[in-house]
Amino acid sequence: MNVAIIGASGYTGLELIKLLINHPKFIIKYIANSTGNINVQELHPCLKDIINIDVSKADAKEVALNAKLAFLALPHKTSMSFAKQLLSLGVKVVDLSADYRLNLDTYEKFYCKHEDKNNIDKAIYGLPEYFKEDIKKANLIANPGCYPSASLLALLPLIDYIDTNSPIFIDAKSGVSGAGKNLSKLTHYGHINENCFSYNPFKHRHMPEIQEKIKVLKNKNVLINFVPHLLPITRGMLVSIYATLKNDKLDTNFTQILENTYKDNEFIRIRKNPVDIKSTSGTNYCDIFVAKNNNALFISSSIDNLLRGASSQALVNANLMSGFEENIGIPKIAYVP
Amino acid sequence: MNVAIIGASGYTGLELIKLLINHPKFIIKYIANSTGNINVQELHPCLKDIINIDVSKADAKEVALNAKLAFLALPHKTSMSFAKQLLSLGVKVVDLSADYRLNLDTYEKFYCKHEDKNNIDKAIYGLPEYFKEDIKKANLIANPGCYPSASLLALLPLIDYIDTNSPIFIDAKSGVSGAGKNLSKLTHYGHINENCFSYNPFKHRHMPEIQEKIKVLKNKNVLINFVPHLLPITRGMLVSIYATLKNDKLDTNFTQILENTYKDNEFIRIRKNPVDIKSTSGTNYCDIFVAKNNNALFISSSIDNLLRGASSQALVNANLMSGFEENIGIPKIAYVP
Amino acid sequence: MNVAIIGASGYTGLELIKLLINHPKFIIKYIANSTGNINVQELHPCLKDIINIDVSKADAKEVALNAKLAFLALPHKTSMSFAKQLLSLGVKVVDLSADYRLNLDTYEKFYCKHEDKNNIDKAIYGLPEYFKEDIKKANLIANPGCYPSASLLALLPLIDYIDTNSPIFIDAKSGVSGAGKNLSKLTHYGHINENCFSYNPFKHRHMPEIQEKIKVLKNKNVLINFVPHLLPITRGMLVSIYATLKNDKLDTNFTQILENTYKDNEFIRIRKNPVDIKSTSGTNYCDIFVAKNNNALFISSSIDNLLRGASSQALVNANLMSGFEENIGIPKIAYVP
Amino acid sequence: MNVAIIGASGYTGLELIKLLINHPKFIIKYIANSTGNINVQELHPCLKDIINIDVSKADAKEVALNAKLAFLALPHKTSMSFAKQLLSLGVKVVDLSADYRLNLDTYEKFYCKHEDKNNIDKAIYGLPEYFKEDIKKANLIANPGCYPSASLLALLPLIDYIDTNSPIFIDAKSGVSGAGKNLSKLTHYGHINENCFSYNPFKHRHMPEIQEKIKVLKNKNVLINFVPHLLPITRGMLVSIYATLKNDKLDTNFTQILENTYKDNEFIRIRKNPVDIKSTSGTNYCDIFVAKNNNALFISSSIDNLLRGASSQALVNANLMSGFEENIGIPKIAYVP
Repeated sequence: MNVAIIGASGYTGLELIKLLINHPKFIIKYIANSTGNINVQELHPCLKDIINIDVSKADAKEVALNAKLAFLALPHKTSMSFAKQLLSLGVKVVDLSADYRLNLDTYEKFYCKHEDKNNIDKAIYGLPEYFKEDIKKANLIANPGCYPSASLLALLPLIDYIDTNSPIFIDAKSGVSGAGKNLSKLTHYGHINENCFSYNPFKHRHMPEIQEKIKVLKNKNVLINFVPHLLPITRGMLVSIYATLKNDKLDTNFTQILENTYKDNEFIRIRKNPVDIKSTSGTNYCDIFVAKNNNALFISSSIDNLLRGASSQALVNANLMSGFEENIGIPKIAYVP
Repeated sequence: MNVAIIGASGYTGLELIKLLINHPKFIIKYIANSTGNINVQELHPCLKDIINIDVSKADAKEVALNAKLAFLALPHKTSMSFAKQLLSLGVKVVDLSADYRLNLDTYEKFYCKHEDKNNIDKAIYGLPEYFKEDIKKANLIANPGCYPSASLLALLPLIDYIDTNSPIFIDAKSGVSGAGKNLSKLTHYGHINENCFSYNPFKHRHMPEIQEKIKVLKNKNVLINFVPHLLPITRGMLVSIYATLKNDKLDTNFTQILENTYKDNEFIRIRKNPVDIKSTSGTNYCDIFVAKNNNALFISSSIDNLLRGASSQALVNANLMSGFEENIGIPKIAYVP
Repeated sequence: MNVAIIGASGYTGLELIKLLINHPKFIIKYIANSTGNINVQELHPCLKDIINIDVSKADAKEVALNAKLAFLALPHKTSMSFAKQLLSLGVKVVDLSADYRLNLDTYEKFYCKHEDKNNIDKAIYGLPEYFKEDIKKANLIANPGCYPSASLLALLPLIDYIDTNSPIFIDAKSGVSGAGKNLSKLTHYGHINENCFSYNPFKHRHMPEIQEKIKVLKNKNVLINFVPHLLPITRGMLVSIYATLKNDKLDTNFTQILENTYKDNEFIRIRKNPVDIKSTSGTNYCDIFVAKNNNALFISSSIDNLLRGASSQALVNANLMSGFEENIGIPKIAYVP
Repeated sequence: MNVAIIGASGYTGLELIKLLINHPKFIIKYIANSTGNINVQELHPCLKDIINIDVSKADAKEVALNAKLAFLALPHKTSMSFAKQLLSLGVKVVDLSADYRLNLDTYEKFYCKHEDKNNIDKAIYGLPEYFKEDIKKANLIANPGCYPSASLLALLPLIDYIDTNSPIFIDAKSGVSGAGKNLSKLTHYGHINENCFSYNPFKHRHMPEIQEKIKVLKNKNVLINFVPHLLPITRGMLVSIYATLKNDKLDTNFTQILENTYKDNEFIRIRKNPVDIKSTSGTNYCDIFVAKNNNALFISSSIDNLLRGASSQALVNANLMSGFEENIGIPKIAYVP
């Protein structure tokens, strides 16, 4: 089955190419970025001798001629105008941007005016553990953000035990690749190396995404207090969630609850020791650990921000949309050591 | 004034040597470790041509003959038996271990049986911003732990605004030097590099230290929920504190409160942007930032774990105990970039 | 076809397990280390839910009952006594240690007394680009060292143009995983991070290995002056070779020579820009770049020290020994970014 | 004595500020960059509460009104037009750019047309170990490049023993701060981290600088073959020099020769074990190690690229020009660990 990748220059575009090269069913037929006119081996020298395909200037009609499904690894806003065209031409879309993740009001409050109001309501949020049946029938997937993927997978199974009148805190720690390949003071080596700091505390746009999905799935209004930090590593993400339990005499085995919740989900691993970033780097796994101290709850989850937080999760969604097993071509072997 | 350093092999011992070399008043007269029989330039090759002194096998009588004040950079337990001897010989002691930081009961619960019950009550907790007058008169200083230093300086000024019936969470992130120079799986390069993880969640021995000092200073019983993490950096510490405010309609300017609290303390800097580790690395500064989201409070502090979290704070204490200005010989210039 | 891995605890053992899990022909039937009595998921937590097999205490007879071919990821010396038993029981061996890499005299000069003199002469040096036909027929492969792999692949094609009366210098730079998983001062995070240094200059045991293979393949006596350095990275290796050209008026296109030499070798890539470590990390590739300045020659090669420098090269050898295509199950997709 | 720093935004400008804050004789009276209109604490947040001075838009007349000596931490070309004005106004200049390092012909061949031909011949090359008496009398110092500083200090004492008809190779390894604070693909965290590569092999503009100074000081025409590499560290530099000895039967003690050469130079340390970067980070030291293998010579030197390779060496020069001891205010205590 032929697929297209639009937005091949960035990190998530590269990850998609790398995953699809070895995929047993999908064939990369079309790759595009905003300029075209370059071979993919020049664009990404690590691909030399592995895949030989020209990178085109993105054109929706060309996509429709070449592929049944397209991955959009585009910036917010650019993505929705391109998705709109593709959908009208009958191409299925997995959108890695934020453009279809939120309901219209929330989107316009935190991002900008929406340009594809027809489709925003039809988009399925591509968190496979919670929306699998809808994903199978979808034409448009809103692939979750990296922080929401790690946060929701950790928090949702335990939300009923949490006092949602008390603040829920998420201290999230991301590798620098989460900030993309663009040049900025933030991603200069001298700024990141041997350093660590929070950024946009309580103001990151993944905060409403987490809140909205808890509302959709659990019918609870929660206030998520989200503080992202940058780590001096390239890839990987560690999310530390702190919440108040409803009842401090509770003798609940939270590890057991997590295991039961995810017993049929092969890409979630419940750990009995604190999770680390390296055990999930290079994979689609989300590892989760939980501990409690009186009425205080700590949940820690780890993912690869570029894979489970973007490209491999997008591929799981594409597998499901195409009638394949969700796990085909999805990486499990970590970059350890 | 002649001083001694006992425990010269580790990181905090080295930092003490480096600080004292350039100190305008103190002279290093005696350096010891557990084996002796080596020159300090062999023990620490970075000191070649800078200081020339033999490292002795630690002996309390020799210390007393040579120095009026001794810094103990020894492991817990070893420290108290040595301190006891030094005090009986009239030598003032700044103890960097945990042995005199807690009251007896708490100490014996979290560490081991105490061997110097006569002195434990007389020890002054060496957090200069809160115990300056006592420090000036003290013969024995219990130098605070690195996590408690960064946590208490950030939390104490705002504790009255916090709902202490709700859990207070501390997500602390430390450079690897906090784990010392000893060989362990934890500190192997392949384990730390490109990685991040929590360890001993809710079980670290700095948790009761933080709680006890809040009780002493603010007469409040609080439950600190402390989760330390290791960062892939050598030195530095970032502490992220999450708490619930008493009243969510509160219009308090927390930045202003912090500035007022510390207006006469030259080693505290209140930041209007999130603090980072690098701006305090190499210095005795504690940088603090605060933000609020409804009734959720976020306080972030940054210190150099080996300096403000150990050796430069010990030297501030020694300055005060010796009648000097607290800031002489104390570093302010950060390792940036 | 059933295979065994002996020495599963270290980095190269782990890499073998990871590669074999996805191999289309080989099945891991037996895994051992020096103690046994543990499941592989406990030994390597990153393998949780991926492979479920008990790790045995290494026993040659058990290997022979279970597998036709064994990978030995053991320390020097331990390896030869185990290999000897396996060969006598009819098991083919790929030995990742140094025990069969050198001729007897050189081995005993640089390592220790050899304990399997019958087999040392029959071992084939497992550098597939140069010994492919012999490897196909071999029962015992001496898998090359990491430094020799990167050095020989870069140097051999150009040796005829080099003035071998002048010294050849190899400035090699290795990630820390090359020093193994054992605890040592060398591999402590605080020693490596933000640091770089040479070690054992002109004295490393890979120096005679490089010299001997040049003699065997090109019948030239060369003096290799080998200086290894450690880099603050976990995996990967960059080798910079400096040599004097025979004739400084030479107008030879060295890039073209490299391309011609390796045109039928899919795991060598000749680069027109300087090679970097990341483009080969996670793969079996050796990337090579060459430049010249009058009669001065610079050749730079990059490999993953744990893969092309150990485990994936071992697997290429096993493929060839077993009558398979050399490239099955061999990784090409790099850990970029 | 009042001094000015022109070019305060970059790394070397910041290092100058940091050094001068604690200098016992010099007072920073004027700081400028290309835009002005900012306080130095905003420009460099790590300086908060340490120094309070406005950053001006660079103006030569203002400099002359305020200072007797100016440090120029400006880009090549910008520097010479500013230096020219300052010199005509009677201000002494220490220029950290390349503009006065070379003779006119070499400069114009490798850089651009020179705009201050009157002064280029009068500039003194600021390598204190070799030009101390000239520096004391100079009005204009050309502060050496980082690579030449480390290379020349290591190579000059042994050049007479080297066969200069054979190529001399310099494999230099620099921390990323050497590439400056400007944004570029090269300095993006994702490009540098876990990576290492050479750049501009045989084409770097520090190559002619090294050659010219050997000619000036030793009257030898040598061909330096210079290959710089970037290391995944922020600061520090390791230079590995490979050369052929004139006579391979030579029984010379090269360590002794180095010690004799530099016995009166307090900022050079001759090491008996291979040098490392960390032991010189944060200091003005140049550490040197030498080893030999038959007629092959290996010299390894380590400096802090921003200090001995730029700002602290500039300050040594300023000390000498001002009649002070060369070592006042010059750092010796390394950033270890």
